[in-house]
Amino acid sequence: MDDENTIFVGSKETMSYVMALMTQFSSGSEEAVIKARGRAISKAVDIAEIAKNRFLDDAEITDILTETEQLENDEGDGTTNVSSIEITVKKH
Amino acid sequence: MDDENTIFVGSKETMSYVMALMTQFSSGSEEAVIKARGRAISKAVDIAEIAKNRFLDDAEITDILTETEQLENDEGDGTTNVSSIEITVKKH
Repeated sequence: MDDENTIFVGSKETMSYVMALMTQFSSGSEEAVIKARGRAISKAVDIAEIAKNRFLDDAEITDILTETEQLENDEGDGTTNVSSIEITVKKH
Repeated sequence: MDDENTIFVGSKETMSYVMALMTQFSSGSEEAVIKARGRAISKAVDIAEIAKNRFLDDAEITDILTETEQLENDEGDGTTNVSSIEITVKKH
């Protein structure tokens, strides 16, 4: 899965990521991945659920992976662990 | 899976749920489920990742499910959709 089919969830409104996902599918992709870290994980689940239930009758969540990433902390003198999630959505 | 093996994630500190999970396993369970709704979803992922990486070398996340639940809103005159997650952790 290259980055083209990936939606990175940040601080924008939930619906703007849902729209990005819809655009992905309407441009011909059969699969998209929603990625998020830390507090944005809840939003990533919302995006997948809203897209699946409200907009894409023929889509389903086929895989959900979580992992722990090490990020440099703001002071640059060490690392902080942060959880991340990858949700794969497929259209039939 | 009955409620006995389920950790419901609320507003307590992340580590208190990690400890509840450890207690679950040390009392003989081979499987536990972490459940959360809304913003607590990110915390549920943290709990699973911390337990797996820091405390339970022989544990793994075997399943992650998401769904949309309908909750009565505060005014009692309608329902609000909220996303939820269920993370299953198994000890080998």
